[in-house]
Amino acid sequence: MLKPGDTLGILGGGQLGRMLALAAAQLGLKVHVYVPDLDSPAFDVVSDRTIAPYDDEEALAWFAGTVEAATYEFENIPSTTATILDRAGKLSPSPRALATTQDRLDEKSFVAALGIPTAPFAEVSTEAGLARALAAIGRPSVLKTRRFGYDGKGQAMIRPETDAVAAWAALGRVPCILEGFVAFERELSVVAARSRSGAFAAYDLCNNEHRHHILDITRVPAGVSAATERRAVEIAAAIAAALDYVGVLTVEMFLVRQDGAETLVVNEIAPRVHNSGHWTIEGAVTSQFEQHVRAVCGWPLGSTARRGRIEMRNLLGDDVEAWPSLLAEPGAHLHLYGKTEARPGRKMGHVTRIFPLD
Amino acid sequence: MLKPGDTLGILGGGQLGRMLALAAAQLGLKVHVYVPDLDSPAFDVVSDRTIAPYDDEEALAWFAGTVEAATYEFENIPSTTATILDRAGKLSPSPRALATTQDRLDEKSFVAALGIPTAPFAEVSTEAGLARALAAIGRPSVLKTRRFGYDGKGQAMIRPETDAVAAWAALGRVPCILEGFVAFERELSVVAARSRSGAFAAYDLCNNEHRHHILDITRVPAGVSAATERRAVEIAAAIAAALDYVGVLTVEMFLVRQDGAETLVVNEIAPRVHNSGHWTIEGAVTSQFEQHVRAVCGWPLGSTARRGRIEMRNLLGDDVEAWPSLLAEPGAHLHLYGKTEARPGRKMGHVTRIFPLD
Repeated sequence: MLKPGDTLGILGGGQLGRMLALAAAQLGLKVHVYVPDLDSPAFDVVSDRTIAPYDDEEALAWFAGTVEAATYEFENIPSTTATILDRAGKLSPSPRALATTQDRLDEKSFVAALGIPTAPFAEVSTEAGLARALAAIGRPSVLKTRRFGYDGKGQAMIRPETDAVAAWAALGRVPCILEGFVAFERELSVVAARSRSGAFAAYDLCNNEHRHHILDITRVPAGVSAATERRAVEIAAAIAAALDYVGVLTVEMFLVRQDGAETLVVNEIAPRVHNSGHWTIEGAVTSQFEQHVRAVCGWPLGSTARRGRIEMRNLLGDDVEAWPSLLAEPGAHLHLYGKTEARPGRKMGHVTRIFPLD
Repeated sequence: MLKPGDTLGILGGGQLGRMLALAAAQLGLKVHVYVPDLDSPAFDVVSDRTIAPYDDEEALAWFAGTVEAATYEFENIPSTTATILDRAGKLSPSPRALATTQDRLDEKSFVAALGIPTAPFAEVSTEAGLARALAAIGRPSVLKTRRFGYDGKGQAMIRPETDAVAAWAALGRVPCILEGFVAFERELSVVAARSRSGAFAAYDLCNNEHRHHILDITRVPAGVSAATERRAVEIAAAIAAALDYVGVLTVEMFLVRQDGAETLVVNEIAPRVHNSGHWTIEGAVTSQFEQHVRAVCGWPLGSTARRGRIEMRNLLGDDVEAWPSLLAEPGAHLHLYGKTEARPGRKMGHVTRIFPLD
């Protein structure tokens, strides 16, 4: 268990690392970020920074010695990096959680083995395998790289007319997974936390809308039945328990309506705080960032109670130019990540609006 | 008007500077703190730090060149320091606000000249003056140094039996003010903000309890009549307007009950965010720290709406050892300032509890 004044290490220094660092500071912790990038949004709000590649074992070992606990802000750090910090007994979520979630095939297999619905899926590692997968899954389906995908990167829709071999070639013929296309009604996410002692707490279910594969708007409540909301939280709890997870994790799901009945299909697990949980900064008693810090420090979880009806909008690229009007809007909570260049689709900030409970 | 990515300078690096820096970071600003101390709570959460004396004109000029706006976290910085930054057109609140509030005689005279009740007061700069002041004000009264007092430091009660000359000698025979003792029922404070365009917004009135002259507990609502609450806000607005104030300011008042009627007597003005406003971090739509940042950046003020019934307790000295039970208490918002040594009476952190509105 950490104590105030101890140092929390964070691998990665983007906006998630930045908001984790702000939450850690509020609880009296120091923060040391480790990133390969020369400049990172988190640099402005931490006491210590190490700039080194993720595979620099010497730098990692030194970093491990300077922190009492370590975590990561995104799932695409190499597993060897995680293993070095885990050997020092300091990393959560565990390397196993990381390994399971950074490979789409392992992730889907793990979820399916828990008896939780996923899209139908098949492995693709050869052209013959691609043909077999297409025969099994059919079209439309989605071909995704097994690793390093995010925000729609590393995927291709396989429609009836698509040349699947060419699509796989365009993805670099790397190991892939073919997933059946799910005709979903809504995209949902459960942001939840599990503590070292196994306590579990979920935030209310989020309804997410994407724009060009990037999260655009999150709304809470999600507008599903109470039974579906309960089921979504049960699924997240089962996944967290099976991974012996410590920290905040996010389970993305599709809501499918069949003959009027609501069914949940798990799409993806993010072993970290999540864009769809940004509303918790003002909208919940404990933010997802404080919750993650609490969990990885060995502290008890905080209350996930919600304060109102929520709408969180991402500020992507030029959206950020609306900052003056957002500052002038009563009750709009503006968050900017300190990024200088507003490239198209880049997450520059977000704004959360809280309306009275109906 | 500043824009995101600009740098806000803060003179002083204690917990107020730290919480200002956290609020500035949320809005995408960089923060540069200037402090004489080798280690400061704010250092852990800012992008730039300058360690130099407040009278180092060269360092101040350099600092002014690195920031787009500057402010201060406490009123005891030298006025020459303020003037240097003001000459660069970058300081708010203004040197005038600082000068008026850092001298108890000037402050009381300023308030009285606005027609706002204060305790009776008289200047003390010689032994003869002390005798004249005692004759005019009577006993019990309070002898206070004109400058550099805070948290009960630099004051002495003058009771019927007190040797007033000895009391003044114990204060170093520095210029003082003798104030009539006010038999108050409650101590109150208005935390409010004024923007560059002259907009004014106050938080709900705070009821403050002190322990050994240091703030212990703040409760909101303050439990006074609606007319008194309105009057308190009018007083703060009049003071802010008269100072052409920009930023958050706090007006401490006594509630005096005479023949059942509630009267307000202004005790002190703090030209800054204030301990009695810490509850606004979770308890109001916009925190006092964000509000101050908005004002000094030339941005519009945020909503001061309150979220519930509030109790904020300071963690003084060893109180901080309760952190594990505070972390385990559902709904308790723990804030720790990153200070290592828990000296008696030292402000180590605070905890805010929000209860449903009655």
